[in-house]
Amino acid sequence: MAKASIIMFMPLLFLLPFSTLALTQDFCVANLLLSDTPSGYPCKPESLVTSSDFLYSGLAKPGPILNPFNTGLASALVTQYPAVNGLGLSATRFDIYPGGVVPLLTHPGATELLFVLSGTMVAGFVSAARNAVYMKTLHEGDLFVFPKGLLHFQYNPGNTTTTGFSAYSSSNPGLQIVAWALFKNNLPSQIINNVTFISFPEIRRLKALFGGSG
Amino acid sequence: MAKASIIMFMPLLFLLPFSTLALTQDFCVANLLLSDTPSGYPCKPESLVTSSDFLYSGLAKPGPILNPFNTGLASALVTQYPAVNGLGLSATRFDIYPGGVVPLLTHPGATELLFVLSGTMVAGFVSAARNAVYMKTLHEGDLFVFPKGLLHFQYNPGNTTTTGFSAYSSSNPGLQIVAWALFKNNLPSQIINNVTFISFPEIRRLKALFGGSG
Amino acid sequence: MAKASIIMFMPLLFLLPFSTLALTQDFCVANLLLSDTPSGYPCKPESLVTSSDFLYSGLAKPGPILNPFNTGLASALVTQYPAVNGLGLSATRFDIYPGGVVPLLTHPGATELLFVLSGTMVAGFVSAARNAVYMKTLHEGDLFVFPKGLLHFQYNPGNTTTTGFSAYSSSNPGLQIVAWALFKNNLPSQIINNVTFISFPEIRRLKALFGGSG
Amino acid sequence: MAKASIIMFMPLLFLLPFSTLALTQDFCVANLLLSDTPSGYPCKPESLVTSSDFLYSGLAKPGPILNPFNTGLASALVTQYPAVNGLGLSATRFDIYPGGVVPLLTHPGATELLFVLSGTMVAGFVSAARNAVYMKTLHEGDLFVFPKGLLHFQYNPGNTTTTGFSAYSSSNPGLQIVAWALFKNNLPSQIINNVTFISFPEIRRLKALFGGSG
Amino acid sequence: MAKASIIMFMPLLFLLPFSTLALTQDFCVANLLLSDTPSGYPCKPESLVTSSDFLYSGLAKPGPILNPFNTGLASALVTQYPAVNGLGLSATRFDIYPGGVVPLLTHPGATELLFVLSGTMVAGFVSAARNAVYMKTLHEGDLFVFPKGLLHFQYNPGNTTTTGFSAYSSSNPGLQIVAWALFKNNLPSQIINNVTFISFPEIRRLKALFGGSG
Amino acid sequence: MAKASIIMFMPLLFLLPFSTLALTQDFCVANLLLSDTPSGYPCKPESLVTSSDFLYSGLAKPGPILNPFNTGLASALVTQYPAVNGLGLSATRFDIYPGGVVPLLTHPGATELLFVLSGTMVAGFVSAARNAVYMKTLHEGDLFVFPKGLLHFQYNPGNTTTTGFSAYSSSNPGLQIVAWALFKNNLPSQIINNVTFISFPEIRRLKALFGGSG
Repeated sequence: MAKASIIMFMPLLFLLPFSTLALTQDFCVANLLLSDTPSGYPCKPESLVTSSDFLYSGLAKPGPILNPFNTGLASALVTQYPAVNGLGLSATRFDIYPGGVVPLLTHPGATELLFVLSGTMVAGFVSAARNAVYMKTLHEGDLFVFPKGLLHFQYNPGNTTTTGFSAYSSSNPGLQIVAWALFKNNLPSQIINNVTFISFPEIRRLKALFGGSG
Repeated sequence: MAKASIIMFMPLLFLLPFSTLALTQDFCVANLLLSDTPSGYPCKPESLVTSSDFLYSGLAKPGPILNPFNTGLASALVTQYPAVNGLGLSATRFDIYPGGVVPLLTHPGATELLFVLSGTMVAGFVSAARNAVYMKTLHEGDLFVFPKGLLHFQYNPGNTTTTGFSAYSSSNPGLQIVAWALFKNNLPSQIINNVTFISFPEIRRLKALFGGSG
Repeated sequence: MAKASIIMFMPLLFLLPFSTLALTQDFCVANLLLSDTPSGYPCKPESLVTSSDFLYSGLAKPGPILNPFNTGLASALVTQYPAVNGLGLSATRFDIYPGGVVPLLTHPGATELLFVLSGTMVAGFVSAARNAVYMKTLHEGDLFVFPKGLLHFQYNPGNTTTTGFSAYSSSNPGLQIVAWALFKNNLPSQIINNVTFISFPEIRRLKALFGGSG
Repeated sequence: MAKASIIMFMPLLFLLPFSTLALTQDFCVANLLLSDTPSGYPCKPESLVTSSDFLYSGLAKPGPILNPFNTGLASALVTQYPAVNGLGLSATRFDIYPGGVVPLLTHPGATELLFVLSGTMVAGFVSAARNAVYMKTLHEGDLFVFPKGLLHFQYNPGNTTTTGFSAYSSSNPGLQIVAWALFKNNLPSQIINNVTFISFPEIRRLKALFGGSG
Repeated sequence: MAKASIIMFMPLLFLLPFSTLALTQDFCVANLLLSDTPSGYPCKPESLVTSSDFLYSGLAKPGPILNPFNTGLASALVTQYPAVNGLGLSATRFDIYPGGVVPLLTHPGATELLFVLSGTMVAGFVSAARNAVYMKTLHEGDLFVFPKGLLHFQYNPGNTTTTGFSAYSSSNPGLQIVAWALFKNNLPSQIINNVTFISFPEIRRLKALFGGSG
Repeated sequence: MAKASIIMFMPLLFLLPFSTLALTQDFCVANLLLSDTPSGYPCKPESLVTSSDFLYSGLAKPGPILNPFNTGLASALVTQYPAVNGLGLSATRFDIYPGGVVPLLTHPGATELLFVLSGTMVAGFVSAARNAVYMKTLHEGDLFVFPKGLLHFQYNPGNTTTTGFSAYSSSNPGLQIVAWALFKNNLPSQIINNVTFISFPEIRRLKALFGGSG
């Protein structure tokens, strides 16, 4: 063994720029002050990153209730939890109160993997190829998966709150609630009728319920 | 120049297996008889591929009309046009007859880039982040884009047929028509009411229209 | 049903930062004033995006003629049509005048899916693995595909203009015309001869034709 | 509106092959009997897929204890839960008993997003670029993230069992426990000493503990 | 510490199916007997994989000479070296004899990173956006990069053999030699003239040189 | 042929913005002064890129010796060689002096393809699924592959220096040396003992050797 040679080279090592061995981007904590890019936000400089960046406590309690769905939603997406930027994962916690629902929705950019923390819920999705419904009643400890981009829903069939944790295959899965997309904006009723065949009186009722105009 | 050396090596060259230089998969024409995989279908052997595999004439005429939307749809997806397998592209042709629509739908796996071949149409999509409607009246030669996974629609506001060509960023974009997902299967009316807030009489009317039960 | 609980939580909801539910990047319209990245341009702020960003009319008429190919080319790539940034799609329109050609070229970063709008053309590509030619005469309504990165060409065998629409599997496919790469710059003739075996007189003639020096 | 035309076209629609509109692969439930591919397992035919494929109850109870770490591990990876095939997500449940640990390990193919279901744990990882330790004490409801491929660990500092749920950004993240990679196989002690600088007596002790030979 | 509990659980551990902890696909050595897929070949069963699969000695000597380029090429692509399947890397060794060239070519599916083992060479590529030539004379120990899909070339300006090692960002980069694509098959001379503007006498000379017909 | 038409259109062509045909990003040489993103650094403007950006001579000589491993490491990663940004490739050169080692390590973000330039070495990796050791003695001209993220090592069993070239499937593969991650920082000895089962005296010895504290 020629370990003696190490000692001779050590002064040289200290003279070399540190960057010779530098490897960046073990992670890329989002700098939300810079413009987003198709692959995610630019990275906060590693020298400013601390252990606290990787901890998020925002799912410890129920999130604000979504009206009129009677479900609380707390999110740990890149905008709330910048550490997941570029890592292809994020999460939410939902608390479905008795009679509450997670309304018909899609995540345009991610699959959702759902874990029941307590209570009972029905979870279902509809396939695009065959309009087939895949639906199950889930209990504490059960997993269910909503494949990427498909319409899905959940509801609480019982008398106690149901709580769950969902992971997404993107740091920014998107969330498109169909009722909001149709009835919470100024999309003209004539167009809604044209493209959904829902009747005008019903459209007016739903616009009133969800706060839409037009 | 030492081209003389080539002559000496040539006998050696002929003895070597041809595979030494073989490079596969310039393309991967789908073998639809084998099981699909997450990246697409296994490839047809290159020796069986001919020029005809790359030509598809199925968009030369309007496709079958989707009921009750009064729109013809012809598709060149991997299942009809196996040459696009693995290449991240596919296409459809739509003919929206007077009064016809492309109903509210999503493509779970692709962005759609739409080109108007003739006529006039209104095209719009709704963003998930803000429920904002992005909508334009399009004329011959116009392009419009529906970002991946978002709810969108088209309709023909005029008295003549409108024809368009759409390209997708996947060989298999998926197509989920919201009205079919809700009203063309056996999804129970109670659940539809729960997760969409559409009233029971309206659900019954729409199930009758689209052919659903339950 | 415990909808009464919603009312109690509503004041809380209005106090919470809106960002709790904010989901960004349904799309990422390019901000061309910022530096490009390997995944595309940074996004224009969503609050500045309007419906007009998603509409592009630049393919409604033939584009400028490429000399001496007698073909018009109009492009809807990310630099002309920033809405496709990050979405993995773009398009061009080509008008091949009688006797015109789309010269031998590659798109280094994309597959091309070609749709014939009017007229007749011959389209072909050469495989890398076997130098096999896949070539067809195409008519109105036909599709043909040039797999990613492969040398391909088109020409108009008739007496009328042929028009087509091409979609690409990238917002920025690149376009490398072999004749331009060799004869429209200052690549020394000696090197061209070395690496293509084209003779010096022919190189001089082609440099003169395409505007190269050296 | 020209809805009358629909009725005329309906017989035609029924005569056309169903595949004209068929869109496959809303999901790709793994057929574990076929060979895996770099993108995942081939898909089970959609006609054989039922709602039960999407439900997995294997995380409802603690998994088998890993010896000698005093931690139970239950897995919902593609091999146990074929529905996640190709969807870029999977999960595990861990129960760290008092004094137990999740030993130093990496997931070669995924980021891990960890959610504390009950109890307290210390979670930490080491960055590659700077050998910096990012470590936090986590409580019920906390999230922590281990970026892809980095060495990480967890331990239970308290007197009660700590339970957590981890999501991974792959249907098959891999799990490489450093102690097992070194001391649970027949890697020669001389090589272990060479590449880790751990002393021979210590290597022998650890091989005895973990069941290695050589 | 409650290590006593381990002993109690051990019998249970042995009764559980081993697959509970099984994680597949640390690697995916190609099974070349099955059909390729867009993501690569299906995997050889891990139980049949040995250390020898990961070793390849085919680059230890010059490969067969490509005629008439006076360059030897030895390849370690997935078809020769199945261990790289799915791993996004492969390699070649080239020996450019005095006066030899690596002719104008592209790799449709990969970037090439070139390392000079001995001798001197000129390496260059042409950009698509501007037809700009990026060219350097390289010496032993130099690296040069040919970005994905762009036309590039190398030649030996000296009197001694130049040897190099190239790595590719794909297990199957493809190799399209422009002269072969044009002159080594039956592409009709009229078409070659149309799409390259090379004169007929020159086309005939080059077809004779490279073995083409038509 | 209608070449006369070209002449008529030429003035128009010169009036059109050049960007009509501009295609960016044949390459994306890193601008290291801007923030990194998940897909790599923003691009240096193409007008500032020269041939010199693509040449890197930093691997022509051995790099600085890593203490106490008696191995020299020179790197051509994105931070040293910005031309590889976004191209999915990078490289290092290692010189293992007699008795030297490449210690147990992982590359969290890349596969490594290793080519022996001179001398003899033993190279091995351990699989995660089975803790199986794949190990070979390599000689000049041999290739070996370390699949992405797995623990691997190399050592020089002979009396002369062994030199090799490694390519990585990322422009920034990361390098995590297990001994440094444990013993070259302030990770508390109690935690190291907990998560590795290495004894306290051995931990103290190794912290002293590698420069750690705590």
